[in-house]
Amino acid sequence: MSYRIDALQYCNWSEKIFEQMRAGGVDAVHVTIAYHENFRETVAVMEQWNARFEQFPDRIFQGFTGDDVRRARETGRTAIFYGFQNPSPIEDDIRLVEILHRLGVRFMQLSYNNQSLLATGCYEAEDPGITRMGREVIAEMNRVGLVVDMSHSAERSTLEAIEISARPIVVTHANPAFWHPALRNKSDAVLRGLGETGGMLGFSLYPHHLKDGSNCTLDSFCRMVADCAEIMGVEQIGIGSDLCQDQPDTVVEWMRNGRWSKTLDYGEGSAANAGFPTMPGWFRDNRDFGNIEQGLRAVGFSEADSANIMGGNWLRFFDENFSPESQ
Amino acid sequence: MSYRIDALQYCNWSEKIFEQMRAGGVDAVHVTIAYHENFRETVAVMEQWNARFEQFPDRIFQGFTGDDVRRARETGRTAIFYGFQNPSPIEDDIRLVEILHRLGVRFMQLSYNNQSLLATGCYEAEDPGITRMGREVIAEMNRVGLVVDMSHSAERSTLEAIEISARPIVVTHANPAFWHPALRNKSDAVLRGLGETGGMLGFSLYPHHLKDGSNCTLDSFCRMVADCAEIMGVEQIGIGSDLCQDQPDTVVEWMRNGRWSKTLDYGEGSAANAGFPTMPGWFRDNRDFGNIEQGLRAVGFSEADSANIMGGNWLRFFDENFSPESQ
Repeated sequence: MSYRIDALQYCNWSEKIFEQMRAGGVDAVHVTIAYHENFRETVAVMEQWNARFEQFPDRIFQGFTGDDVRRARETGRTAIFYGFQNPSPIEDDIRLVEILHRLGVRFMQLSYNNQSLLATGCYEAEDPGITRMGREVIAEMNRVGLVVDMSHSAERSTLEAIEISARPIVVTHANPAFWHPALRNKSDAVLRGLGETGGMLGFSLYPHHLKDGSNCTLDSFCRMVADCAEIMGVEQIGIGSDLCQDQPDTVVEWMRNGRWSKTLDYGEGSAANAGFPTMPGWFRDNRDFGNIEQGLRAVGFSEADSANIMGGNWLRFFDENFSPESQ
Repeated sequence: MSYRIDALQYCNWSEKIFEQMRAGGVDAVHVTIAYHENFRETVAVMEQWNARFEQFPDRIFQGFTGDDVRRARETGRTAIFYGFQNPSPIEDDIRLVEILHRLGVRFMQLSYNNQSLLATGCYEAEDPGITRMGREVIAEMNRVGLVVDMSHSAERSTLEAIEISARPIVVTHANPAFWHPALRNKSDAVLRGLGETGGMLGFSLYPHHLKDGSNCTLDSFCRMVADCAEIMGVEQIGIGSDLCQDQPDTVVEWMRNGRWSKTLDYGEGSAANAGFPTMPGWFRDNRDFGNIEQGLRAVGFSEADSANIMGGNWLRFFDENFSPESQ
């Protein structure tokens, strides 16, 4: 079986979920450890992960490099890689980039839905692009091997990040806007920019990012992957499911509202549809990665290409982008 | 003698300086207690101020309302009002606005030189205006009586803050760009906007904001005040000296660079002129407020108008804007 890597999950972690990862053959998962957490709060989340690694050593361990994905496969476990959906853990301090990379953080979004100190989020009315501090931080991320993720960023900021970054950047979890024009999905210009610079897109299974939402069909999803491969290249795509399994609705409130507003913001949802949406039937959780692989073969991807989409492409990207720049 | 209020100082505080405040008849000073400090670091600065209030009770005390300025005059002391030059003390947490107002903070800049979570600083290449969080925070500042200060903010953000804020806003320390076109000085549109909405401008004595820098003449400064009064109204102007007395150059480095960059940013200065500039001879420190008052009379201001510019206008503004909105 090919490598299987999921480039984004934020579940209410439990032994059940770690068992499902193994049942689904998932060798590595990039997990979100911060939305609005500051540095100290983020370290507390790392402490929770260390407790899980101690408790479930036969299921999971912390991943730092691509080789940890291979080790996970060899030992029948899942490597857990850390990432942030907002730069709040670095606060206003550029030197926290190196500290956090040393602690194992491998992806950092330059912004979540709002304006950050570095870049603009996809729900702001205006997008001025990468800020003064943002340019400095991108250079520092490039230096240490912390990957720029623009999943929740606005269009101009994303295009500028692609241009400014000396190393490839990613969108860990989103879909093409040509298929489903949500604010969170990406334009052809962004897709092309990622493809031309060695970047990656992880396809999301989060219903707000899917055509027809929870009713999206596997066939429609896999045909979209094929169309996107035409634009980006079949080597530059993977999975980033955005699986938020077993989370209570209070968690989506924290994701959307953090501490920035006294009134409730619904993000991609609405007052009538405020919580986590229901996942499509063919992707309930980690056990269903095989369904996607079969779906990719069914729309005509070769065995080699579908294997690369399921994990091989992300593994190559991990190998090339998680270490400091060579001197 | 009229009230004398200085709407911005950031000195290396000492008994000498508090004695000079009294010698200059200065009844109240708005002091900066945060540039890039986070909440906890800002509280530590408040602790330092509490120690000074304990040590020099005959010279200074903390001011909370306009009446504290009157009490300072009656008791021969100087009331110290707190303010921030950046919103970093509220971090990403809108509810810290009320906490900090309770602790005595009366002015907060929505941005310093760079992009903040709320607004854009005057050294960014692009200014998208007030952010989503910025709109929420302005409403909260209006509610509790924490005054919006746009001294270091960019043009569009400043004009939008004037429009969005339900209560008057200020530029505590800057000069008109028509007199000296520094990035930190303000356009006619900003001056007019402040004047029309009951806002205030505090004239700066910081040489980078002065025509001819350290060689600026008192006559040129006071004629600029007269020209500005024509645009804004003589009730909407005061002094905000930006006095940074006895500070080592490491402090201006902190102001400009904070923790956001690994390379040195020179702000208004340059590599060849990196430190604090020399003050003009007619305004060395707090003892010289009388020179300005004389200069204002010499260019034709009435006794009443010059008294208002020296402090009466700020006192009226303090009376009206430091308390919660009436129910």
